[in-house]
Amino acid sequence: MSGVLASARGLAYMRPPEDTLATIAIVGAGMMGSAIGVPFADRGHDVRLFGTPLDLSIIEQLSLGNPHPGLRQTLPRSIRVFPSSMIEHVARDAELFVLGVSSAGVRWAADALAPLLAARARPVLMVSKGLEHVEPAGELRILPDVFAARVRELAPDALLSPVAVAGPCIAGELARRVATCVVLTGRDLAAAQRCRELVSTPYYHVRVDADVVGVELCAALKNAYALGVGFAAGLHERAGGAPGSVAAHNYEAAVFGQALLEMHALVSALGGEPLSAVGFAGSGDLTVTCNGGRTGRFGKLLGAGHTLERARELMGGATLECLEILRVLDAFLASTRSIARERLPLLGHLIDVALKGAPVAMPFGSFVA
Amino acid sequence: MSGVLASARGLAYMRPPEDTLATIAIVGAGMMGSAIGVPFADRGHDVRLFGTPLDLSIIEQLSLGNPHPGLRQTLPRSIRVFPSSMIEHVARDAELFVLGVSSAGVRWAADALAPLLAARARPVLMVSKGLEHVEPAGELRILPDVFAARVRELAPDALLSPVAVAGPCIAGELARRVATCVVLTGRDLAAAQRCRELVSTPYYHVRVDADVVGVELCAALKNAYALGVGFAAGLHERAGGAPGSVAAHNYEAAVFGQALLEMHALVSALGGEPLSAVGFAGSGDLTVTCNGGRTGRFGKLLGAGHTLERARELMGGATLECLEILRVLDAFLASTRSIARERLPLLGHLIDVALKGAPVAMPFGSFVA
Repeated sequence: MSGVLASARGLAYMRPPEDTLATIAIVGAGMMGSAIGVPFADRGHDVRLFGTPLDLSIIEQLSLGNPHPGLRQTLPRSIRVFPSSMIEHVARDAELFVLGVSSAGVRWAADALAPLLAARARPVLMVSKGLEHVEPAGELRILPDVFAARVRELAPDALLSPVAVAGPCIAGELARRVATCVVLTGRDLAAAQRCRELVSTPYYHVRVDADVVGVELCAALKNAYALGVGFAAGLHERAGGAPGSVAAHNYEAAVFGQALLEMHALVSALGGEPLSAVGFAGSGDLTVTCNGGRTGRFGKLLGAGHTLERARELMGGATLECLEILRVLDAFLASTRSIARERLPLLGHLIDVALKGAPVAMPFGSFVA
Repeated sequence: MSGVLASARGLAYMRPPEDTLATIAIVGAGMMGSAIGVPFADRGHDVRLFGTPLDLSIIEQLSLGNPHPGLRQTLPRSIRVFPSSMIEHVARDAELFVLGVSSAGVRWAADALAPLLAARARPVLMVSKGLEHVEPAGELRILPDVFAARVRELAPDALLSPVAVAGPCIAGELARRVATCVVLTGRDLAAAQRCRELVSTPYYHVRVDADVVGVELCAALKNAYALGVGFAAGLHERAGGAPGSVAAHNYEAAVFGQALLEMHALVSALGGEPLSAVGFAGSGDLTVTCNGGRTGRFGKLLGAGHTLERARELMGGATLECLEILRVLDAFLASTRSIARERLPLLGHLIDVALKGAPVAMPFGSFVA
């Protein structure tokens, strides 16, 4: 893959002087948690990767020096792996915690890290992406706030500076050092800047952005919208079409354009900076999720005419964050006055298809009304 | 392909009452000029397709009822084809002219249509896309203005209302009635609205937008930027990688995000509405040009390490609008004060690679600086 590296000429020169090396504790040994260890390890940091209770077999394989079962790639040998039971001891002196759990695991991670965060403040870099709908206030809550709230329940005095990452990043490609650009955001910009210093490499390019709300919304929304872009490939296949330059790319691109318009409108309505929808966190991450992500493949199955149940079955039990995000957005749209459902006809159709079993029938007419 | 149609249930119901049928004269029988005839014909209009002097063999094939050589698809039988020599007689009573020539053919088309436009004002729908750099003022001129200026030289009293179309639309898919959403724009919004009424079908969804400058800039810029997105697939192939969900999608998507940020900045700096970069004319058309267009394939060849000359050879003499646009932008950036070249590092690299033969080495570092 070296041809894809923008300017890598061996990795040795990346290493900072010894005194800037840090101990990094990554919690969650799934694909993304493990892959984010690669740039940290390439920078020469002491990387400690902790599995959750669900990651036992991954930790076993990695401990044996075998490839990561999801990434199908061995990790740098300097990354040391541990079971979750060792977090409290082995992660105690980490300068930075990295959360690589799924959005469903964020509360578990908060419970595991609260005692350590109570003892000493330090940045928490959240690779997990998602949104929650908070009853009864009817507000959307971004994942760093979910994490922070849970930690504060357990350790009211903890000083917390969660930092979130967004932008195009397929884990399997990060582990192979394919170049990308990502965005780090957080309410404590110094913490985000410190994370940037620790993780930047010639293939992992990092920008710090103050727009926490917009960037995190995009990170979550792209999973919902990539589903609709994926319909096109399935519809084309169902109609007996072969892959090629004449396929259903017009359909796909029209849905992409509408998706980005709706993301832009949502970010704006919810108090974020709409430009975030334009750049890496928005259009960039939407692109990669359509081209290489699970959500795009799930959308293709629905576009091909499979029922919801059959499509989920064909995805082999993969976590489908898009369904969770759509559920949250459906509940949010029912209660908010920030934006009317009529302004989001694509999102409405995705909710109908993916949550209510409606057939795919893209409402293009309302996109141009 | 019927599965891709959003809501087509046969085409008959689309036909408007007889008294709203119109005569449509399309000038240019290349792929796009011919394909745009399909929605007009499906609406029941009297469609007359005129080849340019370069389209003689296409006109011959179509006259024989054979498939269009570029589209590899027969056109609806109601579309009548004529050589350019018959424009003055057969197009005289058209209600609408459609320009389907390449950007290089716009002056020729102006010469051919000026006498007819002098006789009676009517909308001219421009499918052609492009930009010109006007010396010595150092301004960019969008194609509708190039066309209008040339017609006025020849027919100073002609009343002109050029309307331009933008948005995702591969000709081969339009001819097969794959659904899409496009944008019509023009300084005369009533003319744009009339075009919309005449051409809208259940697969060709049309929005009218007043942002002439932004929409036309996007229509041209996407050709330049799709080149850079295409590099990723070539680099991946060169590195021995197979197509799949782990490839160089991160690289591709990071370039896509930067491309859209730069398009947004250019539209804004040149007095357009930046939201145009977000929607169908911007992100939508960029997506389709990357996935199904010539420019994306040309970029892939450059990314794979071919020289400029070899890559052009491998494209088999296809018109590469991207090179023309990059030349125009290079000259423009050298003379303008509207925007600094430093704000457009991706565009700068594309100019270096495609015009000056520099090797591909994406400046990701400056994207996040």
